[in-house]
Amino acid sequence: MPTRKIPRATAKRLPVYCRYLNALLNANKRRVSSTELSEAVQVDSATIRRDFSYFGELGKRGYGYDVESLIKFFKGILNQDKLTSVALVGVGSLGSALMNYNFHQSTNLRISAAFDPKPALANTIKSGIPVYPANELKKQIKEQQIDVVILTVPASQAQSVTDDLVEVGVHGILNFSPVRLSVPDNVQVQNIDFTNELQTLIYFIESNHLNGQDE
Amino acid sequence: MPTRKIPRATAKRLPVYCRYLNALLNANKRRVSSTELSEAVQVDSATIRRDFSYFGELGKRGYGYDVESLIKFFKGILNQDKLTSVALVGVGSLGSALMNYNFHQSTNLRISAAFDPKPALANTIKSGIPVYPANELKKQIKEQQIDVVILTVPASQAQSVTDDLVEVGVHGILNFSPVRLSVPDNVQVQNIDFTNELQTLIYFIESNHLNGQDE
Repeated sequence: MPTRKIPRATAKRLPVYCRYLNALLNANKRRVSSTELSEAVQVDSATIRRDFSYFGELGKRGYGYDVESLIKFFKGILNQDKLTSVALVGVGSLGSALMNYNFHQSTNLRISAAFDPKPALANTIKSGIPVYPANELKKQIKEQQIDVVILTVPASQAQSVTDDLVEVGVHGILNFSPVRLSVPDNVQVQNIDFTNELQTLIYFIESNHLNGQDE
Repeated sequence: MPTRKIPRATAKRLPVYCRYLNALLNANKRRVSSTELSEAVQVDSATIRRDFSYFGELGKRGYGYDVESLIKFFKGILNQDKLTSVALVGVGSLGSALMNYNFHQSTNLRISAAFDPKPALANTIKSGIPVYPANELKKQIKEQQIDVVILTVPASQAQSVTDDLVEVGVHGILNFSPVRLSVPDNVQVQNIDFTNELQTLIYFIESNHLNGQDE
């Protein structure tokens, strides 16, 4: 396991590398050059080399990268051999879409419980996932030992639900609300804010300060 | 307008700053200290100062920041005074959720057209947005002069739809498919991949290499 602090941008690319390498392996390709890898994942090769350097030497000059050992390595880092159960809080239209989302199937992520205060949804099964009433949130999260939560509640409830989640030991929140959550240092928050993403995209179009894909 | 190349991470924080500053203005606050700002947006003050430094001097030591001039400044950068019409391609469950999404209302973003090949959806109005059949994509995008597209089509169609969009002059794609799109240099792609986001979150929980929120 790596011991150096790696940038979040690097961490976000690891699943991208991993997925492409799996496709190569399925096609019986054993080796990949840094140029091929770069073109396939649309990340420039200097960035790839820098990313890989955080994890030590993984390629050989003139040979490229060994597909199988790279996969094994990244899977270990990404913990893809272990099933991670995730809860989803807030079954609105976005929450429902995420319950439908297949998370690339190949990975070991699974939404195992959902929560919503609407009486019509409580104690039903939706997209194969049990929906519990909101007042069972703390009990179920604790009993099911869920560590990671997808938060799709309205902005007005985001912080109070977060406080409950932290109280019962959740360590990671994928936050879709526009609220900047306040959490203790041992809890990780990853924000996905569609408005920000669109505004950033438009900013880059207008200013054309960066080229191509995000890193 | 800024002329220096700014990091994508900085650009992503601009809407966050902007939104908080608007809330302050609505509460009749005229001034904000860097500490208050830092706590409210959950970004450490060194990062805030570095972000602001890309745009020149915006605060005064001992005084903090002037709320109104900051807002005016960021709005100009983010082009929030101009309405941007966005198209959405692929009205599945995620596409529908995004059509329902209000993009914080306060901003000048609007999904003005949606596209889907399903006959039942074609030529209907959904969440107030006209849904056109897929074979009208190029015609409508051109006629409506749409520059920015939200892509929520299945992975298998992502690249071919992208090629069509590029052909009719689209310059920005918010890509929800797991495919790494290949586009010319003058087209910006912003990827949102829920699986990657979850895996990155889990990676940071397990390794605890970073603290708090993403930057």
